[in-house]
Amino acid sequence: METININGLSIIGSSDAIHKGESVKAIDPSTTHEIDPSFFSASSEEVGQAATLASQAFLIYSKKSSKERAAFLNEIATQIEALGDTLTERAMQETGLPEGRIKGETGRTTGQLRLFATLIEDGSWSQPRIDTANPDRAPLPKPDIRSIQRPLGPVVVFAASNFPLAFSTAGGDTASALAAGCPVIVKAHSSHPGTAELVARAIQKAAQITDMPEGVFSLLFGGGRTVGSALVTHPAVKAVGFTGSTSGGTSLMKLASVRPEPIPVYAEMGSVNPVVLLPESLSANSEKIAAGLHISATMGVGQFCTNPGVVLVKKDESGDAFVESFVQKMKDTAAQVMLNPTIQRAYCDGVSQLKNNDKVRTLVANAAAADATDCLGATAVFEADATAFLEDESLSDEIFGPGTTLVRWESKADLLQLLENFEGQLTGTLHATDTDLENYSEALPILERKVGRIVYNAFPTGVEVCHSMVHGGPYPATSDGRSTSVGTHAISRFTRLIAYQDSPQTLLPDELKDGNPLGIVRLEDGQYVGAS
Amino acid sequence: METININGLSIIGSSDAIHKGESVKAIDPSTTHEIDPSFFSASSEEVGQAATLASQAFLIYSKKSSKERAAFLNEIATQIEALGDTLTERAMQETGLPEGRIKGETGRTTGQLRLFATLIEDGSWSQPRIDTANPDRAPLPKPDIRSIQRPLGPVVVFAASNFPLAFSTAGGDTASALAAGCPVIVKAHSSHPGTAELVARAIQKAAQITDMPEGVFSLLFGGGRTVGSALVTHPAVKAVGFTGSTSGGTSLMKLASVRPEPIPVYAEMGSVNPVVLLPESLSANSEKIAAGLHISATMGVGQFCTNPGVVLVKKDESGDAFVESFVQKMKDTAAQVMLNPTIQRAYCDGVSQLKNNDKVRTLVANAAAADATDCLGATAVFEADATAFLEDESLSDEIFGPGTTLVRWESKADLLQLLENFEGQLTGTLHATDTDLENYSEALPILERKVGRIVYNAFPTGVEVCHSMVHGGPYPATSDGRSTSVGTHAISRFTRLIAYQDSPQTLLPDELKDGNPLGIVRLEDGQYVGAS
Repeated sequence: METININGLSIIGSSDAIHKGESVKAIDPSTTHEIDPSFFSASSEEVGQAATLASQAFLIYSKKSSKERAAFLNEIATQIEALGDTLTERAMQETGLPEGRIKGETGRTTGQLRLFATLIEDGSWSQPRIDTANPDRAPLPKPDIRSIQRPLGPVVVFAASNFPLAFSTAGGDTASALAAGCPVIVKAHSSHPGTAELVARAIQKAAQITDMPEGVFSLLFGGGRTVGSALVTHPAVKAVGFTGSTSGGTSLMKLASVRPEPIPVYAEMGSVNPVVLLPESLSANSEKIAAGLHISATMGVGQFCTNPGVVLVKKDESGDAFVESFVQKMKDTAAQVMLNPTIQRAYCDGVSQLKNNDKVRTLVANAAAADATDCLGATAVFEADATAFLEDESLSDEIFGPGTTLVRWESKADLLQLLENFEGQLTGTLHATDTDLENYSEALPILERKVGRIVYNAFPTGVEVCHSMVHGGPYPATSDGRSTSVGTHAISRFTRLIAYQDSPQTLLPDELKDGNPLGIVRLEDGQYVGAS
Repeated sequence: METININGLSIIGSSDAIHKGESVKAIDPSTTHEIDPSFFSASSEEVGQAATLASQAFLIYSKKSSKERAAFLNEIATQIEALGDTLTERAMQETGLPEGRIKGETGRTTGQLRLFATLIEDGSWSQPRIDTANPDRAPLPKPDIRSIQRPLGPVVVFAASNFPLAFSTAGGDTASALAAGCPVIVKAHSSHPGTAELVARAIQKAAQITDMPEGVFSLLFGGGRTVGSALVTHPAVKAVGFTGSTSGGTSLMKLASVRPEPIPVYAEMGSVNPVVLLPESLSANSEKIAAGLHISATMGVGQFCTNPGVVLVKKDESGDAFVESFVQKMKDTAAQVMLNPTIQRAYCDGVSQLKNNDKVRTLVANAAAADATDCLGATAVFEADATAFLEDESLSDEIFGPGTTLVRWESKADLLQLLENFEGQLTGTLHATDTDLENYSEALPILERKVGRIVYNAFPTGVEVCHSMVHGGPYPATSDGRSTSVGTHAISRFTRLIAYQDSPQTLLPDELKDGNPLGIVRLEDGQYVGAS
C-alpha cells in the first residue's frame, strides 16, 4: 500500500489550498494529546474558489449520465477501501472509537456509496412522468409534458463529530448529493480532520479516475464558524446538509433563510428518542428489555442521534424490577473514551444538572477513575415522575452520551400526556404485546405525529441503510421533517422538479425519452409502467 | 336549484363565525361599485377555533382511507357544480372575468379535485417502500422497515386574486392538501369573498355528506394581514400554501421561519417568464410567433403568473419585422377590466415607471377611454437593449398585467448573459429550429438552472393540470423551487416520510401491508412491483 501523507491543507478541486492562517490539531481523546499535523483554516478567498469551482463543475456534472455518476460513486468506495489501515488507524486515534466500529463504519460508508450508485443506475428514483400530447383536444390542444427530478446545484455538507466516516466527508449527505448530480463542498469537523483529509483524497482520486470535472468535490478546514458561515451564505451554494447540535443547526437555518436567495438546510439535530414500555410486554420481557436497552443506551458511549435518552416506564412492580435490572447493568458499565473533550464536557454538564435537579432521582452516576484521561464518559441513570417531567422542560433536553432518564407514569392518561408533550423526535419506540397495543391504541397516532420512525419491540440505535429508512422527524429533531438523511430517499433533498413542454427528443434526459430506453418505472399518461 | 345566500361570515368547521367586527365589501371592477353583503373579519379567537378544530380533525382525517378521502374530493366537485349560475354570476361580478373564463376555471377546479381523487385512490403516489427482515444476517439481524408519505397536519391556504376558483378556496393547494390527508383553513382573498363563501359552503356540505370530521375545512375572512399572520403563526398549523405577490409571499416565509417550530411555506410569487426567440425560427415564423405571443400576453388581461413579461428578440431584420407585427397587434387591443383596483393601480405604476425610464423605448402605451371605469388595463410594449436591461435591475421586475418588454440582443454572448442574469422563473420559453438549438446549445443548461418548466415553440400561459406539470421554479419565482403548485406532484408538499420498523401488520397503512392488498406500485427489497 502506498503511504498517504496528511498535509493539513484544504482540498479545492484538484489542488491543495495555499493559505496557511490559523491552524488546529486533532486531539487523541484517549490521551487528550494533540496529534500532528496542523490543519489550516481555509481563507475566505479559498471558500469563494471552492464555491465557484463547484458552480462551474455543476454545469458538467449535472449533465453526466446516471451511469457515469454511479461509476464515480463506486470508485470513491474503492478508493476509500484502498486507504486500508491508514484510515482505520487515523480515525481510531482521532475519535477514540474501537477498531471494530471504525471498520464497520467504513463498510457502511462504502456500502452506502454503492447503494446510491445502484439507485441512480436504475433511474426510477427520479420520478419520470410523461403526459403525451393530444393536438386534437378542444378547446385547446394538449401539449406534451415530461418532468423529472434534477439536481439543485452545489451542496455544502457539514461533517458530524460522531460518525467520522458515515456522516462525514463521504457520508450519507455527500453520497446522496453526488448521486443527485450536485457537486459537494465538505466542511471538515475539527474533531477528525485527518480522517477527513484521507477520505477527501480518495474522492479526489476517484474524480480523476472517472473523469469528473474539477470542483465536483472540495474539502475545507476551518475552526469556529467563519468558514461554515461563508459557505452557507455563498450565492453559488444551493443546499446544505448538516448533522450536529441544535444550536449549530438552527444557526445555519437562520443564515440560509436570510440570504437574498434562501436555500434549504437539512439539519439533523438529534432527539431523546422516547422508548415506551407497555405493561404486559414489560411484565413478560423485563429482563430482555433491560438488557437490550442497556446495549442501546451505551453503544458508542451513547453518542448516537438515536440514543434512547428517555424511557417511559409504568410505576408498578414489573416497572420496578425492570429499573432495578437496568440500573445494575448501567452501574456495571465502565466509563469509555468519548469522541472529544467538548462532547465530554457537555455530557458531564448535562449529568450534573440532572444530579442537582431536585425533581430527579439519581440512580446511577458513575465517575471515571481519577487518574484516567479527562475524556471519559461514565454511565448515568435518572428517574423522574411523570408530573415532574411535564413541569420541567429541561428534562426532555438531549444529553449526548451514555445517560438515560426513566420517567415513571401511573395511568394511561399520564402516558398520553407525556407523549403529547414531546417535541419532534427522530424515533419513537414501543415495547408492546398485541394486548398492550389494543389497550394503549391512543398512543400510536400521537407518536406518529411526533417522530420519523416508529420502532416496535426493538431499540432505536442501529439505523439500517436501505430504501425505506427514514432518519428524520419533525422539528427540532431535524430542520425539515419531510426528509431523511439516511437511506436512498435522502437523494431527493438535493433535487427539484423540472418539466419539459414539447421538447425535442434529443434534448430530453434519457429517463424521459420515448420508448423508455432505460427500462425504468415511469408514470405515463396516468399509468405506471416498467416495474416487474 | 336552491338559492344560496351569501352571509359574509367566516365558516369554522360546521358553524358560521359569530364575530362581527371590521368588514369589507367586494368591488365590481367593471363599475368599481361595492357589492353586498359585507364580509366580517374573523376575530383572533375564531382563528384559534379554526386551528384547534383542524388539529382535532387531523387525528381522524389522517386516518381515513384513501378511498374515503377520494369520495370527499369527488363530492366537493359535485357540490361546486351544483352551485351552477349562482357561482358563475358572483365570480364574474367580483372579478370582471368573462363567463367563458369563469366556467372554464370552474371546470379546471372540479377536474383538479377529481384528478387528486384518482391519484389517491391508487395510492402509488405515497412512495410505499418495504425492506423485509433477515433475522439471520450477521453481525446484526436485519429488521423489517416500511415507509410511506403521511400527511403533515393542518394546512393554511391563501387564496389568489387572479384565479377565484382554481387557485382559491377549493383550488390546487386545497385539493392537494386534502388529498394528502391534511385539514385546510383557507384565508379568503378580499377581491372575491362571495365566490369564496359559495365554494366553502360546497366543501362544508361535501364534508357532511361524506362524514368527514368537523374542522377538516374552514374559511376565514379578514382584511389586511392580521388574520393571515395569526394563522401562519398558530402552533397547530404545519404548512402554508400561497399564490400572490413577492412581498406577501416573502413576509409569510419570514413569519414561518421565526416560529418556535418553523414550518414550510409554499409561496408561488410569479415571474417574468422569459421568452427567447432564436433567429432561424423567428425568420421562418415571425408572424405566427407574433400572433401567439400577442394572445399569450393579453390573455386574462395579462393577469397570469405565467404571462410572458420579457421577450428576448435578436436585433436584426426578422427581429424588427416581428416587433412591428407584435406592436401592431398590441396597439389594436382594447383595454379590459382588471381584477381589482389594487392590481390595476400597480399595473399603471409599473407602466409609468417604464415610460419614464430613459433606457427604455415605449412602443405601445394605450390609454383607456376617459369615461371608462378606472379599473381598465391597457396594453403596453417596451423595448430595451441588452446592455440597458442588464444594467437596470428594475427592468426584470414583474409588471402584473398586459405589458411586455422586448429586449434586443445582438450576439450569442449577449443572449447568454441575459439568461444568466435572470433570477428564478416559473417558465422559460424557446422558439427555435433544430439548427437554432444546435447554434445556441449553451442557452439550455442556463435556462434549466433558472426555471421550473422549459417550453419549446409555444407560450408559457395555459398551465396543464396533469401528473407531470411543474408550476414552480427557483426563488424568487417560488419560495421553494423543489415543489409545484399545479399537477399531482403538488400533494407531496403536504406530506412527510414515516418509517415503521417491525410493525404488526394490522397497524400498518394498507399501502404497506404484506401481499400488496391495494395492488399499487411499491419498492420491495429494491425491486419495483405493481406497475403494468
